[in-house]
Amino acid sequence: MSIASDIAEMARNARRASAAVAACDSDRKNGVLLTLADLIAQESAALRQANDRDLSEARAAGMAGAMLERLTIGEKTIAAMTAGLREVAALPDPVGAVTRSWRRPNGLEVSRLRIPLGVIGMVYESRPNVTIDAAALCLKAGNAVLLRGGSEALNSNRELARLVHRALAASGLPEAAVQVVPVREREAVQALLAQEEYIDLIIPRGGEALIRFVVANSRIPVLKHYKGVCHVYVDEGADLAMAEALCFNSKVQRPGVCNAMETMLVHREAAAAFLPAMGRRFREAGVALRGCPDTCRLVPGSEPATDADWPAEYLDLVLAVRVVESMDQAIDHIAAYGSRHTEAIVTRDYGRARHFLRAVDASVVLVNASTRFNDGNQLGLGAEIGISTSKLHAFGPMGLEELTTTKFIVCGDGQIRQ
Amino acid sequence: MSIASDIAEMARNARRASAAVAACDSDRKNGVLLTLADLIAQESAALRQANDRDLSEARAAGMAGAMLERLTIGEKTIAAMTAGLREVAALPDPVGAVTRSWRRPNGLEVSRLRIPLGVIGMVYESRPNVTIDAAALCLKAGNAVLLRGGSEALNSNRELARLVHRALAASGLPEAAVQVVPVREREAVQALLAQEEYIDLIIPRGGEALIRFVVANSRIPVLKHYKGVCHVYVDEGADLAMAEALCFNSKVQRPGVCNAMETMLVHREAAAAFLPAMGRRFREAGVALRGCPDTCRLVPGSEPATDADWPAEYLDLVLAVRVVESMDQAIDHIAAYGSRHTEAIVTRDYGRARHFLRAVDASVVLVNASTRFNDGNQLGLGAEIGISTSKLHAFGPMGLEELTTTKFIVCGDGQIRQ
Repeated sequence: MSIASDIAEMARNARRASAAVAACDSDRKNGVLLTLADLIAQESAALRQANDRDLSEARAAGMAGAMLERLTIGEKTIAAMTAGLREVAALPDPVGAVTRSWRRPNGLEVSRLRIPLGVIGMVYESRPNVTIDAAALCLKAGNAVLLRGGSEALNSNRELARLVHRALAASGLPEAAVQVVPVREREAVQALLAQEEYIDLIIPRGGEALIRFVVANSRIPVLKHYKGVCHVYVDEGADLAMAEALCFNSKVQRPGVCNAMETMLVHREAAAAFLPAMGRRFREAGVALRGCPDTCRLVPGSEPATDADWPAEYLDLVLAVRVVESMDQAIDHIAAYGSRHTEAIVTRDYGRARHFLRAVDASVVLVNASTRFNDGNQLGLGAEIGISTSKLHAFGPMGLEELTTTKFIVCGDGQIRQ
Repeated sequence: MSIASDIAEMARNARRASAAVAACDSDRKNGVLLTLADLIAQESAALRQANDRDLSEARAAGMAGAMLERLTIGEKTIAAMTAGLREVAALPDPVGAVTRSWRRPNGLEVSRLRIPLGVIGMVYESRPNVTIDAAALCLKAGNAVLLRGGSEALNSNRELARLVHRALAASGLPEAAVQVVPVREREAVQALLAQEEYIDLIIPRGGEALIRFVVANSRIPVLKHYKGVCHVYVDEGADLAMAEALCFNSKVQRPGVCNAMETMLVHREAAAAFLPAMGRRFREAGVALRGCPDTCRLVPGSEPATDADWPAEYLDLVLAVRVVESMDQAIDHIAAYGSRHTEAIVTRDYGRARHFLRAVDASVVLVNASTRFNDGNQLGLGAEIGISTSKLHAFGPMGLEELTTTKFIVCGDGQIRQ
C-alpha cells in the first residue's frame, strides 16, 4: 500500500468513527479523558522508554538545546498532560447546546443547535504533549482527530496513541476516533491535506514555514496564525509606572512566544520621561533595542532600527522601539506592520482607549494589560487548541467552542412554502 | 497592464476602502442603500438600455429560454432590487455588538465584539440582481466587496456599479468599497482567487462546475454548497395528508432550486396507504418517478431507479422514491447519498422526531415542514447571501451575521501575566 492510500484509509475510518464520538454523551467523553489521565500516570515508564528512543535518535541526528528539550517527556510533561486532561474533562460540553431559538410568524420553531465539526487534522512539530492536548480537546468537542506530529517524536506519539486507544476502548468508542499518522515522510502531510471528503478542518501548529506549507497544500479549511508581530502603544499621559510594568511583562516574561511584544510605540509627549528608565530596565534584562532616531537619542546603547525591524517577529530578547507623533500614527504603524494577532494600548484617556479598541484590527486588543494575555486559558476559554489570525470561523484564541459549529433545526406542524 | 495586476490593484483598493466601511455607523450605511434604491428606480431606463446590450449580445450568441430570462432586468427585477435594498437597510446592524462579556479572576474584562470580515469576493453567474443583493449585504455588514458576475451580464453590472458608486459618493464613502470586475476573461477569476493578502472570503454562487472551479483555485477561504440532494422521510404512523402536502410542496413548488426534495423515503408500514395517492398527485403535476421495486409495484407508471438516481440532484420534475424498513435505514440512506443541505421527517412520534433532528448531518433538519424553508428569509435571518454545506464559520443559510466575525477586547488596569 502507498502512503497516500494508507492516509486515505485512516481518514475514511476517522469519518466513520466521528459519528460515534458525535453521538457520545458528556459523561462518556469525560470518562475517556479521565481514564487516559490515569493510564498516562500508570504507564509513564513505558512512555519515557519510547521517548528515550526518540531522544537518542534525535541526539544522533545532531539535535540539541531547546529543540531537544521540547521533545523530552519528563515528569513535568507527564504531570502537565494528566492535569490538562482533567481540566478538559471539567470544562462544560459545548455539544448539544441550543445557542438561539425563535418562532416564525407561520409557527415554525427555528433553533441553532451546537454540533461537532466532524474530523479534525492536526499537523504540528516536536512537542509530544500536543498529541494529548489536541486529542482531549477534539474528543471533548465530539470530533474524531488525525494527528500528524513531528517525525522526530514518532515513537512517543505512537506510545501515547496506544494509551488513547486503551482509554477509548474502555468506554466502547472506536480507536479510529484518535489516530496518529505512523509514517515519517512529508508525503503523509500532503496526503492528509488532500482528504477533503473526510476531514473538515486542519489546524497546523509550529513554525511559519510549516504553516505556510500546510496552507499552500490544503483544500481543506485551515485555521492558523503565521506569526505574532505584537505592539504596545504607550499613550501621552499614560501611567508610566504601569506602562513600564506592562511593556516589560509583554517582552520579557516569555520572549519566544507569539503573544510577546515585538515593537514598542511611544507617544512623543511621553518619550523623554518614559524611554530612558524603560530602556535601562530592558538592557538590564538583556533586551537589545532597535530604535528610531529619537529612541536612539534617549536610550544610550540602542541600535538604529532598519526597515527590516518593523515587521520582524524576533521571538527573542530583541525589541524595536519607535516614537510616534500621535495615537493615529501608532494605529497606522500597527496597520502597516502588525499581524492581526495582539495589540495593546497603555492610556489614562477614556476616549482614546475606546477608539483604539475599535480601530485596531487584531484578534485581541487590550487596554492597560499585557499582550501575554492572548491565550485561551488566560482569557477564560479553558484550554486552547491554537490561535487564529484569519477572520473566518475563529479570530483569536480557539477553545472547545471553536471546534464545533451549529446546524438549524426546525419544528413545524405541516407548514408549506407559498 | 495585465488582468492579474489590474485585479491585484482592485483588491488593494478594496482593502483600503474596507477600513472606511468598517468605521461607518449604521445610519450612513443605510443611507447608501436607500439612496441606491432611489437611483435604481430613477435610472431604470439607462439600466434597461445597458441590459438590452447584454441581451442582444446573448441572443446573438445563441442564448435562449431560462438563461435569457435570468439575464433580463425587467420591471419585476427592478422592483425586487429596490425592495431588497430597503429590506436590508431595515435589518439590524450586526457590527459593533458585544456578543458576550465576562470578568476574569484577575479583574480583566473580556468581551467579544462583532466586526466586519473585511473584503469579500463574490463570483456568480448570470443574474445581475445578485450584484445589488450582494453589495447591499456586504456593505451593511461593514465590508468592501469585489463582484465578478457572469461575463454575459457585464454591461448591466457596470451600469449597476455606476449607480452604487453614486450612492457611495453621496455618503462620502470610497467607490472602491464596491467594485465590479470589468473584464470578461476567466483569468480574472483566477487572479481574484489569488488575492489572499487582501480578500478575506470568497462566496461563489452558481452551478456546481463554477463552484468546483472556485474551490480548486482559491487559497482564500470559500463558503459554498455544491448541491442539494434533499430528502423527505415519511415515517410509520405519519399524518399522511400532511405528508402528501409537504412532499408535494418540497418537490413541486420550485423544482429548480437547491432546497427542493430530490428523493422521498417512505417507511414500509406507510407505503401501501401513502404511495398510490401521492404517486398519482405527482404524476398529475408532471413529476416523473424513479422508484425502488416496492415503489414501482405500488405506483403504476414509475420507472425503476438505478444507482445513478440516489445521489442525483435533478433540479427538475423528477423524483427518486425508496421504501425503507425503518427510520434507521432512512438515516443511513441520507448519510450515504445526502449533501448535508436540507433533510426532513414527517412523523407523529416525539422520540423519532428528536432522534432524527440530532442524528441527521445536514445544515437544516426539519420535522413536519417543507424542505423549501431552508432559506435565510424564510428562517428569519433576513436576506441571505448564500447557503453553506461545509461546517466552518457557517452551516446553512448565511445572513448578515455570517458576513462578520468577532474579536476579543480586553480592558485591564495594569494586569501582567505571572
